[in-house]
Amino acid sequence: MEVKIKIWLEKDGLNVLGDGRLKLLRTIDEVGSINAAAEKLGISYRHAWGHLKKLEERLGCKLIEPRTGGKGGGGTTLTAGAKRFLSDFEKIRKEIDSHVKEKFEGFDMRKD
Amino acid sequence: MEVKIKIWLEKDGLNVLGDGRLKLLRTIDEVGSINAAAEKLGISYRHAWGHLKKLEERLGCKLIEPRTGGKGGGGTTLTAGAKRFLSDFEKIRKEIDSHVKEKFEGFDMRKD
Repeated sequence: MEVKIKIWLEKDGLNVLGDGRLKLLRTIDEVGSINAAAEKLGISYRHAWGHLKKLEERLGCKLIEPRTGGKGGGGTTLTAGAKRFLSDFEKIRKEIDSHVKEKFEGFDMRKD
Repeated sequence: MEVKIKIWLEKDGLNVLGDGRLKLLRTIDEVGSINAAAEKLGISYRHAWGHLKKLEERLGCKLIEPRTGGKGGGGTTLTAGAKRFLSDFEKIRKEIDSHVKEKFEGFDMRKD
């Protein structure tokens, strides 16, 4: 038997950070543009942008900023705050994942 | 910010025990019949029965049995194994819930 777990954040009963937005932020960080990230995830730019704006609004912080310099320039990057937020979340999530796996190790219906 | 968590069990990639089936088992235990439990949960008897048979099949154990004796007789009750399975699962889930809440206590985007 395998235990599965899903973790997400809410604020005032509204979804803040779940798997979808987490993946979007990580992908922007990886590919350096909202457009390329949306394409990679198979969602529209408009959809991705909506998610980002909602997330910034609910957190009360900027998450993305224009990327300056570098090869080709342009594009979008995560703010330092957003990067820290993601890594904080991931760190706790990983710790919880291992805790859960450990607790459910060998869990099954006990047969007499 | 509030952390939300969902935990379920899978076996060979198939859902075994999630919120729906857990609630069904608990309700049968409480009301003493599949019919009354289904009605209380707003699902059909057929649907409830299907869940129970699938669950028994995936666990390889009987979960329900006819209720004998008592006022009015008849009805359905959980097997001792099913009761233990539920209470084992609930115990671990509660422990994980508190662990998660503790880990995410005060979690927010850190502002500089």
